[in-house]
Amino acid sequence: MPEPTPAVTAAVLVIGDEILSGRTKDKNIGSIAERLTAIGIDLREVRVVPDVTEEIVASVNALRARYTYLFTTGGIGPTHDDITADSIAAAFGVGIGIDERARAMLLERHRPEDLNAARLRMARIPDGADLIPNPVSKAPGFSIGNVFVMAGVPQIMNAMLDAILPGLSQGVPVLSETIEAGKLPEGAFAGGLATIAAAHGSVSIGSYPSMTQEGFANRIVVRGREAEAVAAARAEIEALLAGLLR
Amino acid sequence: MPEPTPAVTAAVLVIGDEILSGRTKDKNIGSIAERLTAIGIDLREVRVVPDVTEEIVASVNALRARYTYLFTTGGIGPTHDDITADSIAAAFGVGIGIDERARAMLLERHRPEDLNAARLRMARIPDGADLIPNPVSKAPGFSIGNVFVMAGVPQIMNAMLDAILPGLSQGVPVLSETIEAGKLPEGAFAGGLATIAAAHGSVSIGSYPSMTQEGFANRIVVRGREAEAVAAARAEIEALLAGLLR
Repeated sequence: MPEPTPAVTAAVLVIGDEILSGRTKDKNIGSIAERLTAIGIDLREVRVVPDVTEEIVASVNALRARYTYLFTTGGIGPTHDDITADSIAAAFGVGIGIDERARAMLLERHRPEDLNAARLRMARIPDGADLIPNPVSKAPGFSIGNVFVMAGVPQIMNAMLDAILPGLSQGVPVLSETIEAGKLPEGAFAGGLATIAAAHGSVSIGSYPSMTQEGFANRIVVRGREAEAVAAARAEIEALLAGLLR
Repeated sequence: MPEPTPAVTAAVLVIGDEILSGRTKDKNIGSIAERLTAIGIDLREVRVVPDVTEEIVASVNALRARYTYLFTTGGIGPTHDDITADSIAAAFGVGIGIDERARAMLLERHRPEDLNAARLRMARIPDGADLIPNPVSKAPGFSIGNVFVMAGVPQIMNAMLDAILPGLSQGVPVLSETIEAGKLPEGAFAGGLATIAAAHGSVSIGSYPSMTQEGFANRIVVRGREAEAVAAARAEIEALLAGLLR
């Protein structure tokens, strides 16, 4: 794949046993991918890890070192299995304690007498972190360094992204053109497509089969940051397919 | 999380730019997770990487060394962006070439005169690999060492898993009990739940909020391999919730 310069890159770390057991089906990866792509940030890697401190710490440190941004989802609730905040503090080697700003946010939802030890866990924030507001249920996420720590519930995760994205370095958005190849089999156009791909170094060309009730359907996607190059590749692909259908 | 012994563990590697761009929403992670869990294999990690050889090689080698099994999805079609088979060969340091068994499978679907260079790419199999049959569109997956290489189209991936799973070492299945906490907030039961979790080392207890049209709903899941321990933890959790509702 051609490398845009300077690229703004990202990784996602999904934290949670419930995704790995299959009990909960992740919906956040796809949403984050779409939203980052739309503002020109290249999502380069995703990992899903269990609720195990050492696994979270190792992945956070590997991914935050490698990409411009790291987004995590899950594990910031009030129960004993919510260990993300402590794991992030451990990854950064900083302390963690009750954050008064976070406590104030929780008090927008809970009466003081209901702010028990468990709920106060949601105000435990690593030292030096900034808070990410949660308009849905108040308990905040946080950012520290280039790491953004978000809730796992999709509605809350998306509300947190609403607050985060405007503040990020944005890249040049990728233009994406889809060419429907329909029932034309991949094996028929693959040779020509490889030639076109080789001739257009600044675009990436992918072929994506899917199964429909009528059998396979193929789609070709041209992606790139230079409009002329994308348009030129698209025109050549359309000519290739037209020639095969003739 | 308590560690069963001996555990049979697994990782999944999803290969494909289209997942990272958000254009295609992955459905395979959830299916594989469910099917492995059902036969007692613990899915411990998932990664999604782009169509870049070095990324695939690095992830394959990290994950196959660490877990009993590694399952990959995507990148085994006929087009230029399908680089999984070559990347797996590189990861294992073995050669790759046209496999006559794979060619014979392709000939079940294609006339000899239609088996062009692109389609023959789907018969390129790393040296020493076994084939995984593909009842849907014939082009096989393959296994080498503890790595199982499958298609990305969900219907084909699942058909390949049908062929793979009976041959694997299976673990003791995890028993999973779900207790509906309904609208009872996590913050109300989190303290008691932590005490119960600490007293039952052989089970893992998770609390999973979701948003419904009526607001938050919470579910508590108890997982473990010992029926008595799971039942005991469940009973204590039910008593905890009943006490809070009283």
